[in-house]
Amino acid sequence: MSVLIVGSTALDSIKTPTKENPRLLGGSASHAAVAASFFSPVQLIGVVGEDFPKKYLELYRKHKIDLAGLQILPGKTFHWSGEYEVNMNNRRTLATELGVFETFNPTLPKSHQSTPYVLLANIAPALQLHVLDQMKKPKFVVADTMDLWLNIALKDLIKLLPRLDGFVLNDSEAQQLTQEDNVFKALKKLHKMGPKYVIIKKGSHGSVLSSPKGLFICPAYPLNTVEDPTGAGDSFVGGLMGYLAQTKGSVDANIRRAMVYGSVTASFCCEGFGLNRTTKTTRADIEKRVKELEKFTKF
Amino acid sequence: MSVLIVGSTALDSIKTPTKENPRLLGGSASHAAVAASFFSPVQLIGVVGEDFPKKYLELYRKHKIDLAGLQILPGKTFHWSGEYEVNMNNRRTLATELGVFETFNPTLPKSHQSTPYVLLANIAPALQLHVLDQMKKPKFVVADTMDLWLNIALKDLIKLLPRLDGFVLNDSEAQQLTQEDNVFKALKKLHKMGPKYVIIKKGSHGSVLSSPKGLFICPAYPLNTVEDPTGAGDSFVGGLMGYLAQTKGSVDANIRRAMVYGSVTASFCCEGFGLNRTTKTTRADIEKRVKELEKFTKF
Repeated sequence: MSVLIVGSTALDSIKTPTKENPRLLGGSASHAAVAASFFSPVQLIGVVGEDFPKKYLELYRKHKIDLAGLQILPGKTFHWSGEYEVNMNNRRTLATELGVFETFNPTLPKSHQSTPYVLLANIAPALQLHVLDQMKKPKFVVADTMDLWLNIALKDLIKLLPRLDGFVLNDSEAQQLTQEDNVFKALKKLHKMGPKYVIIKKGSHGSVLSSPKGLFICPAYPLNTVEDPTGAGDSFVGGLMGYLAQTKGSVDANIRRAMVYGSVTASFCCEGFGLNRTTKTTRADIEKRVKELEKFTKF
Repeated sequence: MSVLIVGSTALDSIKTPTKENPRLLGGSASHAAVAASFFSPVQLIGVVGEDFPKKYLELYRKHKIDLAGLQILPGKTFHWSGEYEVNMNNRRTLATELGVFETFNPTLPKSHQSTPYVLLANIAPALQLHVLDQMKKPKFVVADTMDLWLNIALKDLIKLLPRLDGFVLNDSEAQQLTQEDNVFKALKKLHKMGPKYVIIKKGSHGSVLSSPKGLFICPAYPLNTVEDPTGAGDSFVGGLMGYLAQTKGSVDANIRRAMVYGSVTASFCCEGFGLNRTTKTTRADIEKRVKELEKFTKF
C-alpha cells in the first residue's frame, strides 16, 4: 500500500567540523520519502520554489516518488543552514529562510485523499492538521515533530495528538513536552495525550516504542563514522512507515520490525551528507544490516 | 565455579534530590559480590575498619560470601559521600576518607589463589595488578575501572590491560582513554590495548560488548524510578561474572546472556539506596526481568 508524506522540502547547507556542503536536497519530507521509497510507493506533499534544482526532482523520480502533490511556486525554496559541533548531537541553526514555505497550505489531489498510511513528517502542527483534515479514513497516521513546535505551536500539537495512531519524537522533546526526565514515565504521559503508539528516539542509543503490546527496545545500527546526522530521524520514521505499508497483518505484528528497518535506513543517512548516501543505498544493503542487527542483539 | 572479587568495601553516604542516607554498605566489591552471589559462590577480598557495622558482615554472610579474604583492621572504614543532581547521570563527590584503605595490600589466602573467575572490581590498578599477581592460572579475568584512575594511575592501568581477558568501562571513560568519541571506534582501540572482550557501559542506554564473536548490543532493563544509581556498574559486572562462572561451555557462548543477567541485577540496584533493594532481590525476580527483556527486544 502507499504512504502519503507531508513535511518540509528544502535546501540544506550543512557544516560539520570537517566539511561543508551547500544547498543539498533536504527537509523532513525529502528524507522520509526517500527512506519510505525502499519499501512502498510514496506520495509527497510539499512546496518548492522556482530555484529548486531539476536534479533534485529527478532524484525524487528515481525513487518513484509521486510528485502530484509537490507544488512549484514562484519564489525561493525553503533554505536551512546549520552547523554541527564535534559531538554531532549538538547542532545550531545558522539561518532559516522560509521562502515559498511561508504560505504553504496544500490542497491534496483527489487521488491522494484515500491513501491508507499517512506520515505527517516534521512541519508546523497546523499544517499537519490541515493535511489530516483532507484524508478519508486513513488506516494508520503517524506524526513526527521538533522542539521548535513545542516552543511556538504547542496548542496545535496538543490538538493533533488525539488524532494520531502513532507519535514519534526524540528524548529531549519528550522531556520538554511531559516535564518528565524518565523515558518510561514520559511514554505513559504521552499516551494520555492521545496516540496508542509512541516512539522516543535516542539517536545513537536507538529508540523505544510503547504500544498496546508493550515496550520494544529498538537498537541503532552501530556506525563507525557519522558524516552528517541531518535527516536521520526523518529517515527513521520514513523507513518505518514505508516498511509498515508493505506488510500484511496487524500493526502490532509488524511495527517492531518496521522500527528496525527505519533504524537501518537512518544509519545509511548518517553516513553521507544530506541524502548522498541514502540515495546510493539498495534494498539489499538494508536487508544485510537488518540481519546484522539481529545478530548483534541476540542473546 | 567460584568468583574471586577484589575492590573497595566502603561506607557510602548518599544524597539525592529527594533523600539522604548516611553510612550505607557500599564500595565496588560489596556491590559486585552481592550481585555475583545470586549465581555463584563468591570470595571477597577487601579491608574494613573496626567501625564496620556487624550488620553489614551479616549481610555478606547472608549472601554466602566467603569472607576469608576480608581484613578487619584497627582504624576507620573507607567512607565516600556524594550527591546526585536531578539528572542522576551527574553526581559529585563531597568527601573521600580512605581510612584503612590507604595501606590496603592484600595477601590472598591459599584457598583463593586458584579461583577460576577473577573480577578486579573498581579499585587502584596497582592493587588490581597486585591481586592478579597472586592468582594461579585463572580461567577468566575481568577488570572494571573509573575516571579517577585514568587521571592519576594511567600507567598502571595500561600495564594491567594486556593481562585481562575482559575490560569494562563506561562511555565517558572509554572516550577519555582512547580520545575517540565514537563508541565502536573506541572499542577497536581498546582491543589493541590488550583485552579480547571489551564492554562499554552506557547507563540507562545499556551496554555494548565487542568480542571475538562480534558485537552485542545489550539493553538496560526499563526502570520507571531510579532511586540511587550508586553501584549499578559494579552490580552489572558482578552479576555478569557470577552468571558466567555457573555456565558450562565457552565464554563466547555465554557472555551475552551473562551481560543481560548483569544488566537486570543492576536494575534492582538502582531501585533502592545502596544495596537495600539488591539484598531483597531473589533469583526468581531476576529471571522474571530477564524474560521481560527478551520480550522487549524481540523483533
